Amino acid sequence: MAGAVENKLKGLGIALQEAPAPVANYVPFVRTGNLLMVSGQLCSDGDGKIVAKGQLGGGVSIEDGQKAARACAINLLAQVKAALGDLDRVSRVVRLGGFINSAPGFAEGPKVMNGASDLMVAAFGGKGKHARSTVGVAALPADAAVEVEGLFEVS
Amino acid sequence: MAGAVENKLKGLGIALQEAPAPVANYVPFVRTGNLLMVSGQLCSDGDGKIVAKGQLGGGVSIEDGQKAARACAINLLAQVKAALGDLDRVSRVVRLGGFINSAPGFAEGPKVMNGASDLMVAAFGGKGKHARSTVGVAALPADAAVEVEGLFEVS
Amino acid sequence: MAGAVENKLKGLGIALQEAPAPVANYVPFVRTGNLLMVSGQLCSDGDGKIVAKGQLGGGVSIEDGQKAARACAINLLAQVKAALGDLDRVSRVVRLGGFINSAPGFAEGPKVMNGASDLMVAAFGGKGKHARSTVGVAALPADAAVEVEGLFEVS
Repeated sequence: MAGAVENKLKGLGIALQEAPAPVANYVPFVRTGNLLMVSGQLCSDGDGKIVAKGQLGGGVSIEDGQKAARACAINLLAQVKAALGDLDRVSRVVRLGGFINSAPGFAEGPKVMNGASDLMVAAFGGKGKHARSTVGVAALPADAAVEVEGLFEVS
Repeated sequence: MAGAVENKLKGLGIALQEAPAPVANYVPFVRTGNLLMVSGQLCSDGDGKIVAKGQLGGGVSIEDGQKAARACAINLLAQVKAALGDLDRVSRVVRLGGFINSAPGFAEGPKVMNGASDLMVAAFGGKGKHARSTVGVAALPADAAVEVEGLFEVS
Repeated sequence: MAGAVENKLKGLGIALQEAPAPVANYVPFVRTGNLLMVSGQLCSDGDGKIVAKGQLGGGVSIEDGQKAARACAINLLAQVKAALGDLDRVSRVVRLGGFINSAPGFAEGPKVMNGASDLMVAAFGGKGKHARSTVGVAALPADAAVEVEGLFEVS
């Protein structure tokens, strides 16, 4: 049964798929105390296909980068649901770490990362407002355009 | 009214300006329990101007990179003050994450990052000694030379 | 006296050396509550020599990158032992952050990072399964091929 947050996502046309499995010898999330640490999520869609490959400031447009960041955020939420059963148990999105696959000099990482941040605020309202670091990296797994990791305070 | 730590900074000629506003849909800090997570701060000065643009190992010298890292640290402290009202409520600087805008092969990130670490120790003494990770990234927001994020234990 | 985890490592032929000293004005670990934050560790061996220099997707093979990641993990454990006295006091490996020195487009970061993840699971079993983020960076201190930071829940 979906909670209030998941219903809000449904109203936005977002259905959380099965959470993506980790690609190696680690787990998608670890809870310690009331903190839930979620592994870096790539910009894959519900079928596991990477939605944007390559670099911002290279072949990937800012618009496509934003969609990619949003896909990462949706995957973070799928992991949180898998961890907690119900997104309503998130009391605060504490931090997002945004890694933008970037050509040297690409300066618009924050615009790209908004695709993830905006989704968190759409889902959780004020509780979705998070601390954030955005950096431009040389390469990402599977040549994904964006990877986002998350830290959540949960009850 | 300034506390002991802020007075020490004043003695070093550092006046904390208004904390920089986030450039997008996130917040500059989130507190969870007694941890304060501060968003990645760029190397902007009190007027919001980026003090060094471009890459280490490219057009930016190590000395200018160190000044940039110091500017990031000052902005972190401005955020901590905005969060807590008084820097004296910091019981420990837990971690700094340093992102150095770097040309491939630039190996001197730690020297650059010392500009931030030294300021923390100057401000907080032993409580300012922190865990740290320094990496060289391909690009940073606004083409800033340095970005630093911080995690603080607070009372 | 070595605990059960350290004995398991010995059975794998791994003797923890003196924990590497930080290269600047910071400390190798900070404990806050029951969380132990360990600074980014480079891929140095017991003599302090970097085991692989340069970039993945450049001069460094995936196999050598995996060995480098494993060396980072061993250094993390040396720091944890220095912090706690006994690795048995780790109740959970919460998170590893993997930074792979990468040529643009290098997509196999997770394979490289498995060198670190596999060691954690070999040492701690189920408690060693961690959340993880792997990114490809443009440059690392000392031109190291890999840097890994760690967050541990401890008792």
